Amino acid sequence: MSAWFMHSLRVRYGETDRMAVVYHTNYINWFEIGRTEWIRHSGLAYRSIEESGLLLPVVNLECSYVQPARYDDIVTVFTRVTEFTKVRIRFEYQVLLGDRTNGGQTVESEEVPEGKLLAKGTSLHGWINNDWKVVALDRAAPDIYERIRKTIGGEA
Amino acid sequence: MSAWFMHSLRVRYGETDRMAVVYHTNYINWFEIGRTEWIRHSGLAYRSIEESGLLLPVVNLECSYVQPARYDDIVTVFTRVTEFTKVRIRFEYQVLLGDRTNGGQTVESEEVPEGKLLAKGTSLHGWINNDWKVVALDRAAPDIYERIRKTIGGEA
Amino acid sequence: MSAWFMHSLRVRYGETDRMAVVYHTNYINWFEIGRTEWIRHSGLAYRSIEESGLLLPVVNLECSYVQPARYDDIVTVFTRVTEFTKVRIRFEYQVLLGDRTNGGQTVESEEVPEGKLLAKGTSLHGWINNDWKVVALDRAAPDIYERIRKTIGGEA
Amino acid sequence: MSAWFMHSLRVRYGETDRMAVVYHTNYINWFEIGRTEWIRHSGLAYRSIEESGLLLPVVNLECSYVQPARYDDIVTVFTRVTEFTKVRIRFEYQVLLGDRTNGGQTVESEEVPEGKLLAKGTSLHGWINNDWKVVALDRAAPDIYERIRKTIGGEA
Repeated sequence: MSAWFMHSLRVRYGETDRMAVVYHTNYINWFEIGRTEWIRHSGLAYRSIEESGLLLPVVNLECSYVQPARYDDIVTVFTRVTEFTKVRIRFEYQVLLGDRTNGGQTVESEEVPEGKLLAKGTSLHGWINNDWKVVALDRAAPDIYERIRKTIGGEA
Repeated sequence: MSAWFMHSLRVRYGETDRMAVVYHTNYINWFEIGRTEWIRHSGLAYRSIEESGLLLPVVNLECSYVQPARYDDIVTVFTRVTEFTKVRIRFEYQVLLGDRTNGGQTVESEEVPEGKLLAKGTSLHGWINNDWKVVALDRAAPDIYERIRKTIGGEA
Repeated sequence: MSAWFMHSLRVRYGETDRMAVVYHTNYINWFEIGRTEWIRHSGLAYRSIEESGLLLPVVNLECSYVQPARYDDIVTVFTRVTEFTKVRIRFEYQVLLGDRTNGGQTVESEEVPEGKLLAKGTSLHGWINNDWKVVALDRAAPDIYERIRKTIGGEA
Repeated sequence: MSAWFMHSLRVRYGETDRMAVVYHTNYINWFEIGRTEWIRHSGLAYRSIEESGLLLPVVNLECSYVQPARYDDIVTVFTRVTEFTKVRIRFEYQVLLGDRTNGGQTVESEEVPEGKLLAKGTSLHGWINNDWKVVALDRAAPDIYERIRKTIGGEA
């Protein structure tokens, strides 16, 4: 299980709905931003991973909504990896109100700090190739496999 | 547990992503369309429910992705209610490829017909008022409560 | 200039914003649905056009907002072609409140009927190939060129 | 006419479409982020303006697409005000590839620097109150009116 990696963003007007809060699917979009930044933090770019012929679609996702975010709020997405095998990877997310990074600096922590929790969830992904066939990451891209493994183990 | 209610829709260009399939959060949007139409089928309009001072935000949701939908596909969202109390309601969804309604006619069925399953999931919701306080539906809006109860029981 | 072709759709919850009306970029999405259905009406599927190696990206668009649409409204998108050459095509749109089709039947008309106008606009598109190079449609795909030309001329 | 104010953002996966570039309506969303940040730069928060009972819906917008942005690109939105009266305000936008701010620092400039232009456009807005009636900003909110006027005049 990796440390939590955090990334902040500001709520867009178009992300709200007529309840005057963030429409629920946008938290799922933020999860995606969280894992993109987690991967970047590990020294990889997800765009490069795709350009090398690998895709990482969502197999399953789950989200619990605790308190609503509102327009113009800054929120921080905390992301960590809780499962990693040759064929799949699971991310866990917590979204807190406010900028919990150091002024935009990307930082890691063992614990999610106390604060106003807005939503939390998980997503499970499988590695596939451009033909949508399952691949074993350690064979298909050993360098990517190692990089993720080390980041999870805190060796990055 | 209610019968399945079905509603078809066509995949929009903007719902796809650079994998050339539907971006995963859009299935969650389709779940919402499914439950809006389930509620309409019960004889209510969700818009009217909100105008009467009640909101039904998502508390939890879960989605599993089986096969991708593509641009211009017609898909059918099957929706049913699997839990209904005074304070909460849970919907279950299955999204199948193709128009499984009778030419757009809204129909019910006990079973989801065989076909190409794209995604499935559930969402749990709680009734609140405009101050975001939990309300008991049977007291706050007995007519709505009865209508949903009857639709689930097949008495509608 | 072609006749107006009409297509109706229902406003989704996620298309609203905290002003309790449809967020302005969604009308632009509806324009896209309008032209997709115009193309289908001409006997082509835009998906097939893309699969044959042609793309039709937006070069310019313009939209005027007259009155807001709201959640669960049915709106009708009127679409026609106002310019068509070998290298480009311009669509014009009007969005009216209500279902102005005959119960979902796709129909044509010379005039946009009177009614509550919500938004109107235009979009200009250029034909390109998969390498994003400009192509002349009459050479690249004479059958598509002819089909569109005939639909505009009312010979379809 | 105000100086250009710049704000950078990273392209999200869900903002792409099956052409593997950014779906065209997302540039319009970025325009909105541009003007939100322009307003913040003037010392106001658009959220506070709305909370004071004023709304600023889009009346007209126009966008030209020059070159596509792609997933994970950083783009910079340049925004300035080109028209400001008691009843309306017009913004102009240019979106350039790359982070053209100083490491996220928000800066102003008289000219848009040379670079790869992706899209450009304008939006016209009118001030209304919560009843959707037109208001004259200098009477309805003289402090907001003055703040914007001074920012445009370079006196802020």
